[in-house]
Amino acid sequence: MAVTIYDVASRAHVSVTTISKILNNKDNDISSATRDKVLKIIEDMEFVPSALARSMVTKKTNTLGLVIPSVSNEYFAEIASGVEKAANSLGYTVIFCNTDESEEREKECLHVLQEKCVDGIIMVPTRDSNENNQKQLKFNTPYVLIDRVFDSFTNETIRVSFDNIQGGYMAGRYLLSNGHRKIGLIVGATTNKQSNDRIKGFKKALNEKKIELDEDLIFYGDYGYQSGSNAAEFFFNKDVTAVFSLNDYMAIGFFKYYRSHKKSIPKDISIMGYDDISMSAITDPGLTTISQPKIEMGRVAALNLINCILSKSYSKDIIFEPELVERDSVRRI
Amino acid sequence: MAVTIYDVASRAHVSVTTISKILNNKDNDISSATRDKVLKIIEDMEFVPSALARSMVTKKTNTLGLVIPSVSNEYFAEIASGVEKAANSLGYTVIFCNTDESEEREKECLHVLQEKCVDGIIMVPTRDSNENNQKQLKFNTPYVLIDRVFDSFTNETIRVSFDNIQGGYMAGRYLLSNGHRKIGLIVGATTNKQSNDRIKGFKKALNEKKIELDEDLIFYGDYGYQSGSNAAEFFFNKDVTAVFSLNDYMAIGFFKYYRSHKKSIPKDISIMGYDDISMSAITDPGLTTISQPKIEMGRVAALNLINCILSKSYSKDIIFEPELVERDSVRRI
Repeated sequence: MAVTIYDVASRAHVSVTTISKILNNKDNDISSATRDKVLKIIEDMEFVPSALARSMVTKKTNTLGLVIPSVSNEYFAEIASGVEKAANSLGYTVIFCNTDESEEREKECLHVLQEKCVDGIIMVPTRDSNENNQKQLKFNTPYVLIDRVFDSFTNETIRVSFDNIQGGYMAGRYLLSNGHRKIGLIVGATTNKQSNDRIKGFKKALNEKKIELDEDLIFYGDYGYQSGSNAAEFFFNKDVTAVFSLNDYMAIGFFKYYRSHKKSIPKDISIMGYDDISMSAITDPGLTTISQPKIEMGRVAALNLINCILSKSYSKDIIFEPELVERDSVRRI
Repeated sequence: MAVTIYDVASRAHVSVTTISKILNNKDNDISSATRDKVLKIIEDMEFVPSALARSMVTKKTNTLGLVIPSVSNEYFAEIASGVEKAANSLGYTVIFCNTDESEEREKECLHVLQEKCVDGIIMVPTRDSNENNQKQLKFNTPYVLIDRVFDSFTNETIRVSFDNIQGGYMAGRYLLSNGHRKIGLIVGATTNKQSNDRIKGFKKALNEKKIELDEDLIFYGDYGYQSGSNAAEFFFNKDVTAVFSLNDYMAIGFFKYYRSHKKSIPKDISIMGYDDISMSAITDPGLTTISQPKIEMGRVAALNLINCILSKSYSKDIIFEPELVERDSVRRI
């Protein structure tokens, strides 16, 4: 059984608060005799002050909460990796919670994190979250919305996002510049801003070429691998030369279906993804996609949150620009 | 600013300890008058007791520490996912730390977690960790070694592992049963038990067919994707019909090299991986590999650790059995 602050207090005949004050150099109101006595006892008993005890006095836990849909998803794992690295370099630890895209679970996570007195929260909201849901959450701590951010937000919110309009636009431009005119679209979820922005950018590129997005050429998936295979089945006999998938997982599911039906990409159909997960460099052919700096987004989120916590200057609205990663899944026609 | 236990103590003219005792129903030595007064003030001030304050009294934080090499690696992310799910279902939160395979960083992580007074630690030790390093760590809390476990261990250690001898044996048997006799081996790291066990099982299968493992047909990689490509270059003009890679990442790097050199798998060479990461179902051809129940291992690790913390009965040594996942990367010759 480790020696606790209570054991020290008991031996020294002083309160726990007195000992905490001494340990945290907030001991102006404590006599030097008491101070020396306590420090001697601490030494004798080999007492290691816990972060917990320190937190009771400083009201800081040096802990951040990280709420993500799923750490099994590489996209969020990389964000988590960036958050952890930056937090640790500044002496913060990270409690992580998975919501599994459940709003109920998200509420529970936020409740638990606040109960744990985290100094700040970094969150990728669930897929269907919006500003109305968020307003109900009543954060008491500074927080960062990362990746899935909302248009309206409170003064205390930091937003780390990615220019999805530009990403969708770049994808559309690239397919058009390769001669494609009949282009299918695989949508993930329609209710969030991030998806809608990608579609908005894609439409903008089409409109520049006087092309309207054909509703019959949209497949509604769920961002999962399997729904990409379902999309491939949907497009298999449709009159399209290329497909734009709003994430890489669905594009990879698409590959699988075509391969199992003895069709070749990009010979029979071209496809573009979005996210640049590590798998996309390995598929055969490599997937042309839109890249987001996921680790860097996590890192910047943590740094700005910690600056906010420490009342240092921080950025409130950080937007990362997309990059097009050209591989071999799109053919010039 | 949220109301704290100090504010309540100040208003009630009692010590923080008194309030903690009342909140935690450990108030036998407190008069009912004081108790009622304090509860009235708590209600008036809308004070929400923090987990922190509760922890000071109960000496439990309901927090587990999770130390893994990297959350960006799918293998460890899935273990983390299982840990988080099980922990949350039992009211525990999880602080996670990445070691990036650095022993120095591992020590720092363990130090921080103990300072945070976590109730228990779940750890995938760094690649080069061994029982001697571990003995120096002097845990004060119950802990679980997961995946990378050691032969000798203390009474307080829970080990959740995977039967790597059997896994290596199954891989060897499978390649032999498909007619392969000249088989290359891609090794990841040689110093840990897990790697050595896979090799041991593989040798056992060869020996049953009176085949010795040829030292010239072993490539030493680092478990990374790139070292798999290097291995492919090494084996490219060697007289082997099949290669066994000790993990899937290296096998996938191997694929990439062969493809870029216009060779076909399994026509030109057969390859088997180990781990069954999600990418392995998607490569072309699909990778035949040895599967480990990663999420389940994380779940079982957390459940047994929590049972240990709560002084309930728990298992100390849990070994998961491998499964061979047959896809299309091995040809019968």
